[in-house]
Amino acid sequence: MSFRERRNRLRELLAQRCLDALVVSNPSNRFYLSGFELHDVQFNESSGTLVICRSGRDYLLTDSRYEEAAGALWNGSEEELVIYRRNYIDCLNTILGKCGSRIGFESRCVTAWQAAHMKSLRCLEACNGLVEKLRVHKDADEVAALKKSFALNHAMLNWVPGVLEEGMTEKELAWKIECYFREHGASELAFPSIVAFGGNAALPHAIPSDKKLTANTGVLLDVGCRVDSYCSDQTRSFWFGDRESDFFCLTRDLVAKAQEAVLRHMEPGLPLSELAWKAQHIFEDAGVASHFTHGLGHGVGLDTHEPPSFSIHSQGTLEPGMTVTVEPGLYYPDKLGIRLEVTVLVEEDGVLVL
Amino acid sequence: MSFRERRNRLRELLAQRCLDALVVSNPSNRFYLSGFELHDVQFNESSGTLVICRSGRDYLLTDSRYEEAAGALWNGSEEELVIYRRNYIDCLNTILGKCGSRIGFESRCVTAWQAAHMKSLRCLEACNGLVEKLRVHKDADEVAALKKSFALNHAMLNWVPGVLEEGMTEKELAWKIECYFREHGASELAFPSIVAFGGNAALPHAIPSDKKLTANTGVLLDVGCRVDSYCSDQTRSFWFGDRESDFFCLTRDLVAKAQEAVLRHMEPGLPLSELAWKAQHIFEDAGVASHFTHGLGHGVGLDTHEPPSFSIHSQGTLEPGMTVTVEPGLYYPDKLGIRLEVTVLVEEDGVLVL
Repeated sequence: MSFRERRNRLRELLAQRCLDALVVSNPSNRFYLSGFELHDVQFNESSGTLVICRSGRDYLLTDSRYEEAAGALWNGSEEELVIYRRNYIDCLNTILGKCGSRIGFESRCVTAWQAAHMKSLRCLEACNGLVEKLRVHKDADEVAALKKSFALNHAMLNWVPGVLEEGMTEKELAWKIECYFREHGASELAFPSIVAFGGNAALPHAIPSDKKLTANTGVLLDVGCRVDSYCSDQTRSFWFGDRESDFFCLTRDLVAKAQEAVLRHMEPGLPLSELAWKAQHIFEDAGVASHFTHGLGHGVGLDTHEPPSFSIHSQGTLEPGMTVTVEPGLYYPDKLGIRLEVTVLVEEDGVLVL
Repeated sequence: MSFRERRNRLRELLAQRCLDALVVSNPSNRFYLSGFELHDVQFNESSGTLVICRSGRDYLLTDSRYEEAAGALWNGSEEELVIYRRNYIDCLNTILGKCGSRIGFESRCVTAWQAAHMKSLRCLEACNGLVEKLRVHKDADEVAALKKSFALNHAMLNWVPGVLEEGMTEKELAWKIECYFREHGASELAFPSIVAFGGNAALPHAIPSDKKLTANTGVLLDVGCRVDSYCSDQTRSFWFGDRESDFFCLTRDLVAKAQEAVLRHMEPGLPLSELAWKAQHIFEDAGVASHFTHGLGHGVGLDTHEPPSFSIHSQGTLEPGMTVTVEPGLYYPDKLGIRLEVTVLVEEDGVLVL
């Protein structure tokens, strides 16, 4: 689907909400609607802002560093490029003045400072999740990119057992994984790899350390790459050595059972919370539910974490075009952590594991 | 300087501003004051929030993924760790209720949504740049880390001419540079490398492409790595081949002259704008000022871009402990771009080029 088509679909949502325009500040939303810069320069430095008008006229505001790149991309008859220097807010306010009287903005993505300085604050309306509502249903181009990203992720996971050796540190393995991704077509990691040996795997967000791999240890890899702008995200937990501990085996089988219970039942139309309970019940029946300390999954696309969130608290149902992770885990501080994660694409008649 | 000492210095600033507490949302500020997580999970997903109270009691709010890591770091008698699950705002508001009546928050770093949901909004006061005011003066530990980061940057720049060869793409060279950094002690790039051949160098924010290196071409490298959490940032422009074009030579010499004019005059106490005019005047005298399209420089530290900004519009003076880039450039679309960038540390009696 072209960027213009995506913007036209957004215009339908604007009409439903009686909004004249939307100020798009989230960088992934900006990219989704325009192809311009998936990333901001740094946390507190935006690469640019889109203003999408119901009338059909759209604006891209950016600074002089991006003038050529943006000009090459943003050159349709209804696409106006505005280069700001030190007067970002003035530029934005001038444009908003032309866009009508009811203007939405992404209050969860724009800073309080910017919101306070946008002109005619009385007309501005916090409006979150509108672009994300489109993004949640992946189109054919997005599915193709996701399949490439997950294919590389699988290739890496098939390759990695062959490079494991005693004495290797978590950091060293993480770097080998990153090199594999980058040298086989990824533009970057989707997120910092989690490479955890033994008890470190009990930290759901473990940072690779200088801990060395020893024989007969659990290994947890939670890894993702970005290919053609789209993220992949998978987790494997396996034993290094030939004497798997009973506790590891038991825990892994339980997590696998929980994951399978969810996967087996996934089909469009089912409530996300009901599906998440499939895993929760298995952990509760086994008396280990307190060791499952996070949600069951999340959407994956331009962001590693994006809607829908997938847990026993989720609203909404599974819908065709969604891509969601299924990643139950059990964590025993200092002892053991097991997480198994796959991502599925929801199709008309079931789900496809990516 | 310990994290606690930094927080105590912040308390002095809070007292001057008659604030009872500051909510710290900027991830670099959070790390500077606590050592906890330099990066957020992704653009719209915070890893945690600090609340620094003038009374001496400090809070770190984070989610269960970081519970162990944060607990290991945040365990002083005045340091309270709060783990939120799905109730972040409630947790934050409960804490703010204990912190006094005048509470500052970083309105340029917090989302409009969060600001709107913080309790007793009438007591909240937008308060930006307070931690940045401390960060602008690097302490001994920070200078040591910056020196390591720049030493690696220099080593890479000395190494890189030996690997250049005809037919290599910008992307390939960028990856070689990244591997060099990562395999010699960097935790990551400080920012995406700019590797630009020929006319591509005219884009101040060029993204490495599949363009191949040919003999007798200008090459621009703007590169940085992160070592011990601190960024380095340097740019070199040089000729690949033995028949340097007159235009390249002339332009490079002019940029070098502008850079030297600034460096020669830099000393503590001088207005930043006055120093920036040294470069501006040289470009104006040569009739090329319109081709210098960005500011002269910026601070470098935990962020690649941080205060002070350094341009003819800057307020303030050069002060001991500051680290600033000096990076004049001239850009001729589709033809040529030259930028030369060094970073200096301001000392009591002059400046040291890092």
